[in-house]
Amino acid sequence: MKNSLKLLPLLAAVALSQGVNAQQAPKPEQLIKWRQSAFQVVAWDFNRIKANLEGSYNKEDVVKAANTIAAIANGGLGSLFATGTETGRGWHDTSTKPALFAAGSKVGDHAASFAKESAALAILAVTSDQAHVKEQFGKLGGTCKACHDDYKVKD
Amino acid sequence: MKNSLKLLPLLAAVALSQGVNAQQAPKPEQLIKWRQSAFQVVAWDFNRIKANLEGSYNKEDVVKAANTIAAIANGGLGSLFATGTETGRGWHDTSTKPALFAAGSKVGDHAASFAKESAALAILAVTSDQAHVKEQFGKLGGTCKACHDDYKVKD
Repeated sequence: MKNSLKLLPLLAAVALSQGVNAQQAPKPEQLIKWRQSAFQVVAWDFNRIKANLEGSYNKEDVVKAANTIAAIANGGLGSLFATGTETGRGWHDTSTKPALFAAGSKVGDHAASFAKESAALAILAVTSDQAHVKEQFGKLGGTCKACHDDYKVKD
Repeated sequence: MKNSLKLLPLLAAVALSQGVNAQQAPKPEQLIKWRQSAFQVVAWDFNRIKANLEGSYNKEDVVKAANTIAAIANGGLGSLFATGTETGRGWHDTSTKPALFAAGSKVGDHAASFAKESAALAILAVTSDQAHVKEQFGKLGGTCKACHDDYKVKD
């Protein structure tokens, strides 16, 4: 008991001096749950924009939805596909194909397109009209589909 | 069959003329799943900022995480607590207490605080240093706790 009490501050000091985070790294199941959640939020906001474009257009609502998609797409999603998350269960079994994790995977290109087109949509939602938002929304949807075709197991 | 085929364009025209969205409104279970997902994404980003503050501070990572929290907090979360979602199952049974939906609920005040403090954090993450981010992060955490104390069933 006495020894372990002495050891704790030492370990903490070592961890801090090495820049190691004091928190435990999240487990793979947690990362999978978070990535499934992130894409669900994107789906929510994508659905909102679609409803606005097909029905009554509320600019403020579209701006909010586009801004959230852009924040997530540019917010470091890659870390949720860390080594160890190739298989496993978050809210449900992962829908990510093993190909995403393979060397030579083009997922970085898809992620960059998703980030770019969503950022453009967030800007257009503020600065432009429904017709331009619709056009850019189509481009954004194209980046979703391209990545899903390559790396997502069909529902 | 012939009659129903004739009726469809008429219904669509009525819906459009009334500004009703052509899409079906999302079901309560879908809204609950989306709100659970949104708060999971907030938890992910909250966890990232905490890890940065307790370990090695990466400004870019903190900016991304704070920006995503701010986008979600200011992105229309209230619509995910629509009438009909008082009970039900998304990824799991809702953790929202019935009190949130009651007349006189102060949830709007909590939501406004969450939106305000997360927006301030997103700005400070870009413009200021770790010490100020830590202080603002504490304020943001306070808004989470205040709302959870009133309206979230304990895990």
